[in-house]
Amino acid sequence: MDIVFDHVMEKARKAKRAAEKMAGIPGAVRDSALHAMADAIMDNRAEIVAANAKDLEQSDRYGLSKAAVDRLTLNGSRIEGMAKGLREVAAFPDPVGIITTMVQRPSGIRVGKMTVPIGLIGFIYESRPNVTADAAGLVLKSGNAILLRGGKEAIHSNIVLASLLSEAAVSKGIPEGAVSIIEMTDREGVRHMVEAAGIVDLVIPRGGKGLIKTVVDLAKVPVIKHYEGNCHVFVDRTANQDDALNIIINAKTQRPGVCNAAEKLLVHSDIASAFLPRAARELLSRGVELRGCSRARALVPEMKEAVEEDWYTEYLDLILGVKVVDSVEEAVDHINMYSSKHTEAIVTSDVLSADYFVVRVDSSSVMVNASTRFSDGGEYGLGAEIGISTDKLHARGPMGVAELTTYKWIVYGDGAVRK
Amino acid sequence: MDIVFDHVMEKARKAKRAAEKMAGIPGAVRDSALHAMADAIMDNRAEIVAANAKDLEQSDRYGLSKAAVDRLTLNGSRIEGMAKGLREVAAFPDPVGIITTMVQRPSGIRVGKMTVPIGLIGFIYESRPNVTADAAGLVLKSGNAILLRGGKEAIHSNIVLASLLSEAAVSKGIPEGAVSIIEMTDREGVRHMVEAAGIVDLVIPRGGKGLIKTVVDLAKVPVIKHYEGNCHVFVDRTANQDDALNIIINAKTQRPGVCNAAEKLLVHSDIASAFLPRAARELLSRGVELRGCSRARALVPEMKEAVEEDWYTEYLDLILGVKVVDSVEEAVDHINMYSSKHTEAIVTSDVLSADYFVVRVDSSSVMVNASTRFSDGGEYGLGAEIGISTDKLHARGPMGVAELTTYKWIVYGDGAVRK
Repeated sequence: MDIVFDHVMEKARKAKRAAEKMAGIPGAVRDSALHAMADAIMDNRAEIVAANAKDLEQSDRYGLSKAAVDRLTLNGSRIEGMAKGLREVAAFPDPVGIITTMVQRPSGIRVGKMTVPIGLIGFIYESRPNVTADAAGLVLKSGNAILLRGGKEAIHSNIVLASLLSEAAVSKGIPEGAVSIIEMTDREGVRHMVEAAGIVDLVIPRGGKGLIKTVVDLAKVPVIKHYEGNCHVFVDRTANQDDALNIIINAKTQRPGVCNAAEKLLVHSDIASAFLPRAARELLSRGVELRGCSRARALVPEMKEAVEEDWYTEYLDLILGVKVVDSVEEAVDHINMYSSKHTEAIVTSDVLSADYFVVRVDSSSVMVNASTRFSDGGEYGLGAEIGISTDKLHARGPMGVAELTTYKWIVYGDGAVRK
Repeated sequence: MDIVFDHVMEKARKAKRAAEKMAGIPGAVRDSALHAMADAIMDNRAEIVAANAKDLEQSDRYGLSKAAVDRLTLNGSRIEGMAKGLREVAAFPDPVGIITTMVQRPSGIRVGKMTVPIGLIGFIYESRPNVTADAAGLVLKSGNAILLRGGKEAIHSNIVLASLLSEAAVSKGIPEGAVSIIEMTDREGVRHMVEAAGIVDLVIPRGGKGLIKTVVDLAKVPVIKHYEGNCHVFVDRTANQDDALNIIINAKTQRPGVCNAAEKLLVHSDIASAFLPRAARELLSRGVELRGCSRARALVPEMKEAVEEDWYTEYLDLILGVKVVDSVEEAVDHINMYSSKHTEAIVTSDVLSADYFVVRVDSSSVMVNASTRFSDGGEYGLGAEIGISTDKLHARGPMGVAELTTYKWIVYGDGAVRK
C-alpha cells in the first residue's frame, strides 16, 4: 500500500468527476462562485494569516532565502490582492460555449466548433501561496476543475486557502472537488499526478527549472511549460538610437528578475561604434554588468568577456550579454540557436528587416520597436494569465482563460447519413 | 557507439535545420513543390512498383495478413491517388502567416497573433506506403518539415517515395531535409525519435493501439494521438425512428473497419420495445452481430450477452454493443465513462436533449441527427486530414493543414517601453 499514491489518486478521481460536471455549469454560476471565493478570503483573513505564520515559522528549517520568505508571506495587501484578482477574473467574458465557426456542408450537415473546458488541470507550483487563489480562479472561470500541488514550504497556507475557496465555490453550485489540493507534499506525489493519464487532462508546472524538468521527464499527461525567458533585443543598422536606448534600458532594468526581461543585446556592426558606448554608459550607470563578445569589448573596455554558456543563460539579474552581429540574418540565427523562445525584439526603421525578424524568429512573442517587458497577459489584453507558455502546441506565450479551453466539433443533421 | 541512435539523430538534426528555413519559404514555392512531387510520382511509377514488389516479396516473412498485404500494395490507382492528393493539397489556401487578430492596446502597442508552422513533425506509421506522400504533402503545405518513420514491411516503398518526394521538393526551392525518412527500421529508432525534445516539435503516430501506446510511454516530445473510435449512437425517447434506423445502419455497416463507425447503440427505454426489434432485424439481416445488456436481450432474443469489456471495445467489425438506458443523462454518463472520446451521435426531436448531449458529452465530435461516419476532414471541409486527434489539446478531431500550424504573438510599437 502506497499512501501517497492513494491520496493523490483519490483526490484526482474526485476532481475528475467534478470536472465532468463542470461542463454543464453556466457562466453565471461560475462567476458567482468567484465572488464568493473573494468574499471567503476577505472574511477569513485572520485564519489565513495564522496558517501562513506556521509556514513562516518553518522557513528556517527549509533554509529559505530572504526573497523566498518574502514570496511566502501573506500580508494584508497580498490577501486583498487575491480577492481583487478573483473579482477581476469574474468580470471577464465567459470563454466557454463560444461557437467560433458554423458552416453548412454540401452533404447538408452543419459543422461547427464550440469552445469547451479542457477538464481537470493539474497545477504544480512552488512557494507563492497567493498563486493558489489566482490559479483556482482562472481554472474555474474557464469551466475546468483544478488539482493543486504546492510546495511544502507553503502547505499550511495552501491548505487553508484551498479549503476556503472550495467551500465558497460549492456554496454557489460548483461541484465538490472542483478545487482540490494534494495535502501530502512528498515528492512522489508529483510523479503520481503527472502519470495520471486519462484522469488529469493537462499539467501546468510553474516554478524553477528543476521542477519543470522533473515534471517533463515524468509526465504521461500533456504538459504546458512556463520555462525560462532568455530574451533578446536586436538593434538593427537603421534603428532610431534613442528608441533603442530606451527599449534596452526598460527591457533590462525595469524588473530584472522576471521572465520577459531582456538578457541579451545584439547590435548591428554598422551602428555598434556609435550606439554601444552610449548604451553601455547608461546601462553601467544603472548597475548592469555587461558581458560581451570580443567586438563589443573592443568598443566598451569595461565589458567582461562572455563565454559560450552566457548566450544560453537567463540571468534574472542586472547582467546583460552583448554581441555585435553583421546582419539581421545573423541576429536571427543567433536567437534561434540560443533563445528559450520566449520573447525577442528588433529595433529598426527598415520594414524589410522587421518583416524578416518577425517571420523567421521562432519565439512565442516577436516585437518590433517595443520592449520585451510587454510580453504579458495583461498588456496583451487577456486579463490575468496562468503562465507564459514557452511550448509551441495549444498555447504559446501568455495563457489566459481562453487558452484554458479547447474545442469540440458539433454537427447537426436532419437524419443525415454518409453516401 | 549506437548506429541507430546516430542515424536517427543525424536525420532529425538535418530535418530540424530544414524546418527553421521553411518558416521563410513562401506559399507559392511550397505549392509548386507539391506539384513537382506529384509529377515525380507519376513519372517514376515503374521504380515505385519495383520497390513495392520487394516489400511484397517479404510480406510472408513478416507473416502479414491478406488485409495487411492489400494495404501494402501500390498499384496504378493508388499511385495516381498519391499524386492527385498532393495536387489537391496544393490547391488549399495557405494556412501560414494569417494574422487572426490585431488590436491596439491602451499602452499604444499593437498586438496580434500570426499563424506559423509548428516546425519538425515526426510522423510514425505502419504498413500503408501511400501515407508517405499524403503526410509529406500536408506537412510541407503547412510550412513544416517531416521526419518519416514507417514500418519495416513497407521500407523499400517508403524509401523510394521519400527520396522522389524530397528531390522534387528541393528542385523547387524547399530546403534539403524537409522531407526526411529514417531508413533503419529497428524498434529503438522510434524511441530515439520521440525522445528528441528540442529537435522534434511534435510526433503524430498513426497505427494500431500497440504502436500508439509505445509512443506515448516513451515520448519526451509532444504527441497528438490518433487513437481508437469507440463511437456511440444514442436513440432518444423522441427520436424519429426512421432517421434513427438509417443512421445506425449507416454508422455501423457502411464501412465497419474505420474509426468513425459506430460500435455501440444506446436506446431510451421508452422507445426500446418499438425501435429495438425493428433495428435488430435490419442489422442482423446485414450480418451484424449484436451484443446486448439484459434489457436489450429481453426484447431481441437473437442478441448475445455483452460483458463489461464490450462497452470499452472498438470492434472495427460487424459487431454492435446494445444497451437500454432510462434517460439522456444516463446515456451521457455511459458515453463519458466508456467512450474513446472520438465521435458520438444523438437521434432526437427534443432540443433540450440535444443541447444536453452536445454540451455534456466529452468527445471530439458530437452530432445531432447525423451519422458518426461524417467525422472526417473532408466532410468537415478541411480538405485532407493527417489524422483524427482523440486528444484534447492543440487539435481535436480531424486535423487538416490549419491544425499543423501554431501561432506567435506579434507586437508593434514606436519605441514603446513599459511603464
